[in-house]
Amino acid sequence: MQSPTIRKLTTLFSRLPGVGEKTAQRYVLHLLTADPQIAKDLGSELAMLHEHVRPCERCGNIADVDPEEPTTLCSVCKDTRRDSQLLCVVGRVHDLMAIERTGSMRGRYFVLGRLLSPLEGIGPDDLPLPRLLARIREEGVTEIIVATPPSVDGEATALLLKRELGPAGVKMTRIASGVPHGGDLEYADPITMGRALAGRQAL
Amino acid sequence: MQSPTIRKLTTLFSRLPGVGEKTAQRYVLHLLTADPQIAKDLGSELAMLHEHVRPCERCGNIADVDPEEPTTLCSVCKDTRRDSQLLCVVGRVHDLMAIERTGSMRGRYFVLGRLLSPLEGIGPDDLPLPRLLARIREEGVTEIIVATPPSVDGEATALLLKRELGPAGVKMTRIASGVPHGGDLEYADPITMGRALAGRQAL
Repeated sequence: MQSPTIRKLTTLFSRLPGVGEKTAQRYVLHLLTADPQIAKDLGSELAMLHEHVRPCERCGNIADVDPEEPTTLCSVCKDTRRDSQLLCVVGRVHDLMAIERTGSMRGRYFVLGRLLSPLEGIGPDDLPLPRLLARIREEGVTEIIVATPPSVDGEATALLLKRELGPAGVKMTRIASGVPHGGDLEYADPITMGRALAGRQAL
Repeated sequence: MQSPTIRKLTTLFSRLPGVGEKTAQRYVLHLLTADPQIAKDLGSELAMLHEHVRPCERCGNIADVDPEEPTTLCSVCKDTRRDSQLLCVVGRVHDLMAIERTGSMRGRYFVLGRLLSPLEGIGPDDLPLPRLLARIREEGVTEIIVATPPSVDGEATALLLKRELGPAGVKMTRIASGVPHGGDLEYADPITMGRALAGRQAL
């Protein structure tokens, strides 16, 4: 493909997660043959993305920038009906969204932004623990739900949080890990099955 | 997800082929957390896409717009070393690119833009046959390679081309259809296997 515009656009698209060169090229060719307005709209929205959306200054969730407000807060932090005493700590915004989709979280969030990962050289000092501690104190948090993923890094982060936040005297809980809804026990991996057994509850 | 910017961008991304809402959201979240320059670059390139690239006026391939040239021609049509007497007719630009990647096509192209499809209501009048006939006459084409896909619509289009262009007295060939390179006979579908047999050539 000789066109420099196409080549540049293909390279940019292949920076998206899970997009290889073939898929990127398919996107470009689709946009070329589709209504030109789509490419134009997508282009202008993307160019302004970081002007319109920024991390929430309190929790790290994504938040719409309101030019008339001095601080940028997300919809959860702005929601006065939320329980400030219940704080859910997550690794990424994606995880926060997955929890919000359940509609059963009535507290607020704190997005760590990363997980403890010795392999990637991310240690305790790379996590925003002082900010988290300050928020717990300021907002009178009484329960912290640790919702980091049930992976090696997620579990390590949960243990770190327990060690660092434990002395604050706040009740700490961890989301359950086990066989997923609709899942077949036969196909559950041994670690998941082991967790489902260890986390068994009274019927 | 409450942010209107995020929602709009997610909807726009899901207009891309094979992109559902989940994937679109993953793209947006990735762009939000990645270097802001990527979203900005992708945005400005997309907004200008249809300004920079247009269909080649001669063959329908994609072509870079040169503001100093009165007509927009693609790199294949501009290439004076190409054999004008050999014309390859394809359905879409994607197919042209697949053929170009082989490096073994020394002629030029004609992109139909669509295939005959009674189911989608695309009849012979919807194909640019008059333009194709004019080009065959003007450029003195002596061989036409019909490279529409070996699908129902592609075969119907090939038969239509044979009927419409046959009287022009030009040699017409069809690309081979059979078991793909590296393919296993055991897993070839009966139609493909049947074509491989019918299209057998002398050893």
